[in-house]
Amino acid sequence: MSAWVLPDHIADVLPSEARHIEELRRGLLDTARSYGYELVMPPLLEHLDSLLSGAGEALDLQTFKLVDQLSGRSIGLRADTTQQVARIDAHLLNRRGVTRLCYCGPVLHARPDRPRATREPLQFGAEIYGHAGTEADIESVVLALECLRVAQVPEVSVDLADVRIVRSLLAGVPVDLATLSRVHAALAAKDGSELAHLTRGFPAAAREGLLALLQLYGDAQVLDEAEKVLKPAPELRKALSDLKSVASRIKGARVTFDLADLRGYAYYSGTRFAMYVPGASDALVRGGRYDEVGAAFGRNRPAAGFSLDIKQLVGVVAPRPLKAAIRAPWGDGAEAIAAIAALRRQGETVVCMLSESSSEIDEFCCDRELVCEDGQWVVHPL
Amino acid sequence: MSAWVLPDHIADVLPSEARHIEELRRGLLDTARSYGYELVMPPLLEHLDSLLSGAGEALDLQTFKLVDQLSGRSIGLRADTTQQVARIDAHLLNRRGVTRLCYCGPVLHARPDRPRATREPLQFGAEIYGHAGTEADIESVVLALECLRVAQVPEVSVDLADVRIVRSLLAGVPVDLATLSRVHAALAAKDGSELAHLTRGFPAAAREGLLALLQLYGDAQVLDEAEKVLKPAPELRKALSDLKSVASRIKGARVTFDLADLRGYAYYSGTRFAMYVPGASDALVRGGRYDEVGAAFGRNRPAAGFSLDIKQLVGVVAPRPLKAAIRAPWGDGAEAIAAIAALRRQGETVVCMLSESSSEIDEFCCDRELVCEDGQWVVHPL
Repeated sequence: MSAWVLPDHIADVLPSEARHIEELRRGLLDTARSYGYELVMPPLLEHLDSLLSGAGEALDLQTFKLVDQLSGRSIGLRADTTQQVARIDAHLLNRRGVTRLCYCGPVLHARPDRPRATREPLQFGAEIYGHAGTEADIESVVLALECLRVAQVPEVSVDLADVRIVRSLLAGVPVDLATLSRVHAALAAKDGSELAHLTRGFPAAAREGLLALLQLYGDAQVLDEAEKVLKPAPELRKALSDLKSVASRIKGARVTFDLADLRGYAYYSGTRFAMYVPGASDALVRGGRYDEVGAAFGRNRPAAGFSLDIKQLVGVVAPRPLKAAIRAPWGDGAEAIAAIAALRRQGETVVCMLSESSSEIDEFCCDRELVCEDGQWVVHPL
Repeated sequence: MSAWVLPDHIADVLPSEARHIEELRRGLLDTARSYGYELVMPPLLEHLDSLLSGAGEALDLQTFKLVDQLSGRSIGLRADTTQQVARIDAHLLNRRGVTRLCYCGPVLHARPDRPRATREPLQFGAEIYGHAGTEADIESVVLALECLRVAQVPEVSVDLADVRIVRSLLAGVPVDLATLSRVHAALAAKDGSELAHLTRGFPAAAREGLLALLQLYGDAQVLDEAEKVLKPAPELRKALSDLKSVASRIKGARVTFDLADLRGYAYYSGTRFAMYVPGASDALVRGGRYDEVGAAFGRNRPAAGFSLDIKQLVGVVAPRPLKAAIRAPWGDGAEAIAAIAALRRQGETVVCMLSESSSEIDEFCCDRELVCEDGQWVVHPL
């Protein structure tokens, strides 16, 4: 096979897209900073047991594994950054109050998430630790929406769910892990006959509640309907009222609910959200509450946050035009060198011509030229 | 072992350092863009044969290897980005004229480079393809120096060398690879007795030339001395005159020469440079000409460039102060929300207090507060 063939679902990012990704990256990090989120950079490599602690099977299957020749221990390439940031909050910062952290870097997936997904997403995320109230959930959703606005995503729809709804319906029901996972799959697929079959031995309230969930998706009326239909347990009431509070703070986006939705990593513990662009089948942003994620590191702090893949984001927003460059001759003279340096410090791109052909300009289109007129270096339009 | 212990030579980057790294990253990329270098983002993972093509043993030993479960083929985590960028120039862009490319991303080393080196450097680099003249060498050195200036490295010293000097001295001398590698090691270690031993069967001119190299380091007089002492082969003359041209364009830095220096990856083919900060034993920047690097991809274009590790760079420059933030109450009111949003869009960091304790501010020091006075939201000093 040729030396330039890349592995499947792995690709180079070429100049015009790379520039757009870099612009989005800066916009997202600056937005998170404007909300008080501090940047951290966890490593790409970690011991497998800390990378996978409490994360469930999905993350395990996604993680590339190798052996560290320095220690002989198993290490993994991170497939998700959330666990790492929880570790940083729990052990390195160890603060008592609220901690807001953000990150941006590649993650690697041993298997692609979707048929045409990259195995090297550029993950950006923001997380808030130490606050159990719904304010943290709201801030996460609002910040995620603001990030998409800064990225100029034209139209956003937000889907809200809460893992406590299914959890409270199943409270006290003896169910093995294999069946539980099939129940979750049937809920995700909205497969009523499979769900009826799986729950045939369940108490009537649980069974009816789970079957009712299959219809509980749509606009805000879903919450009122859920209050009527479902068994009024305290955890369920809290979940519904949290969903209402979060939804009330979402502006400029369509909001829908899907109370049967349990997708995503196993670490979610409360309200969850996903953001979509009309026309795209996969969520652009996923986030929510994951209070248990620090437990493996000995510090079970409340946590909420979200993440997105900038490589996916760049595919749904229009590229911004690049500022045109200035062409300059290759010169040894002190005046030419000084004139070029001055233009560059003003933020201009100045390309020195190394050969007579002008074919060397591709990404940078030159609309001006630096020329010497009567001993003075001046910029002329081309 | 505890879940939060990281592998050796792997570390988290915490907020204040991460912010500084991000600032340096932007400064370096913007500097390269101002010279007309287009950003590319090659993947972290590639098939081993393309990652290691023509790179020599040093890179092979540094490269983490794993098996791709999608294909069963051996893949590697990039330990250096230069080969990848050569592949992009050769196959994806395939332009006829000069191509300038830059990149910034993590690389991973199976073994640390130095006793306290990270195994996850953040590599930034800039490369110029398609121009064989010394102008490309000069532009590389000048851009690297400008990058260090932008990063506010206080004092820089540039060390110049050229692999063609040793190569021309050895031209026509039958020598096996094992001996050649010992000759290189003896030159690097300035070990005269070992070199005399290894070259005892060499032709007199080669032997005397190699031994003379051990003294040929220091300031510009070294070049004049070399012209007198060494056998005047055309390749050697060209190397010395190129070194002179490059040195003549270096401003604001001390320049030294070491004609016996052959360190770095095997792909260098001409003038080489290394930049040092006084007091640091390891080079901050390494670069030079590597015309052979695209050969494995079927396009042997002239190439020159450099790279540096931003994690190393951040250790030698003073951190810049962070702009202080504004503290704001958590509010549901539309006016408060609008006031906060307006401040954030002006570039301010506004931290909403989720609890009454003010201990939640760590990285962001608040020097102002948003308060409601007579129904108006205003910013007051704290």
